Amino acid sequence: MRRKEFGMHDREEIEAFLREMDHGFLGTVSDAGEPRVTPLNYVYHNGNVYFHGSRIGEKMRSIAANPKVCFSVAKPFSQIPSYWIDPDLACPATVFFKSVLITGTAEEVADLAEKADVFTALMNKLQPEGGYAPIDPDDERYRKQLAGTAVVKIRVESMSAKFKFGQNWNETRRETITDRLLERGHSLDEETVRMIGRYCPFHREGE
Amino acid sequence: MRRKEFGMHDREEIEAFLREMDHGFLGTVSDAGEPRVTPLNYVYHNGNVYFHGSRIGEKMRSIAANPKVCFSVAKPFSQIPSYWIDPDLACPATVFFKSVLITGTAEEVADLAEKADVFTALMNKLQPEGGYAPIDPDDERYRKQLAGTAVVKIRVESMSAKFKFGQNWNETRRETITDRLLERGHSLDEETVRMIGRYCPFHREGE
Repeated sequence: MRRKEFGMHDREEIEAFLREMDHGFLGTVSDAGEPRVTPLNYVYHNGNVYFHGSRIGEKMRSIAANPKVCFSVAKPFSQIPSYWIDPDLACPATVFFKSVLITGTAEEVADLAEKADVFTALMNKLQPEGGYAPIDPDDERYRKQLAGTAVVKIRVESMSAKFKFGQNWNETRRETITDRLLERGHSLDEETVRMIGRYCPFHREGE
Repeated sequence: MRRKEFGMHDREEIEAFLREMDHGFLGTVSDAGEPRVTPLNYVYHNGNVYFHGSRIGEKMRSIAANPKVCFSVAKPFSQIPSYWIDPDLACPATVFFKSVLITGTAEEVADLAEKADVFTALMNKLQPEGGYAPIDPDDERYRKQLAGTAVVKIRVESMSAKFKFGQNWNETRRETITDRLLERGHSLDEETVRMIGRYCPFHREGE
């Protein structure tokens, strides 16, 4: 990472973000050596990234051929218009964000009990209100589906993160931008202000 | 694509989606042959995907070493709980989405006038209300910034898209789900209902 001030090294912060989000982008390399990106619903569970898919799709072929993968999760926050910072030039316009980059090795999960556990974790996230019979490989209604659907585990080898919330600004500018965000009140602005407070040490000292 | 019913082949629909979205995920292959995914702000302009970045970052090194790239843009729509379809089993739970996958060749744009044109297109999207001097390489205030920032053009070689909005359901199920979505009224539900109407031929015939 080139801009050190945006680096996030707190593992708990990174994992909390991975648990909060529900879709990410898988990077693989094809047989021909070409890059491929696939959007996925995932769950971060027991320190691994899990996703599911068809057992006969391209994604599974690509992983079988080359299990080295990478996985990116990113969330855009508020857009900061240039004129909040410079009355003349477009250059300071930016978008705040959180992003995590994982590298690891992908492998298909064969064990039905582990697959059931992963689907339960996925469902807890997708449908926290419940409303379905427990996912159990001993339940005949689930058994065939569990066997027929591929579940992939990414064993995490490295994890890095970039959280950009004005850490490169001085305190005065951060306060100005915070006031503007609260005044504007777009859907993500309040959450962005909380993140500025959380990740910017200068601001924290001023509290 | 395995599930043909979700394929979107209308170029205008795909391009409209690319113009509407503002961030995507770039897939590259490193020198060591490993995949890399980078989230980016982009603009789809003159039939190319453009993004910008530091001239000395890892992204630029990776592209210089291996200009074959892929680019994925995806937007999740409504989550469909399993119990709207099956009172017992979790299996039918799903999330609707639009996604586009582009493959192409990345090259750095050297011409300052083209760079200024790309930044103008990016700003039109990010900050449509304006509020800055026109981005012009003859303007001394912009010239150095334009020269110092990398702009990358992805020349599109292939474009495919998957829009998933219940095209595999029969008319009765689609009508039930549409009613439930309108009743629930989460932030994306109304837009999802419009998409079901737009992309599902059975539903259209019933109108």
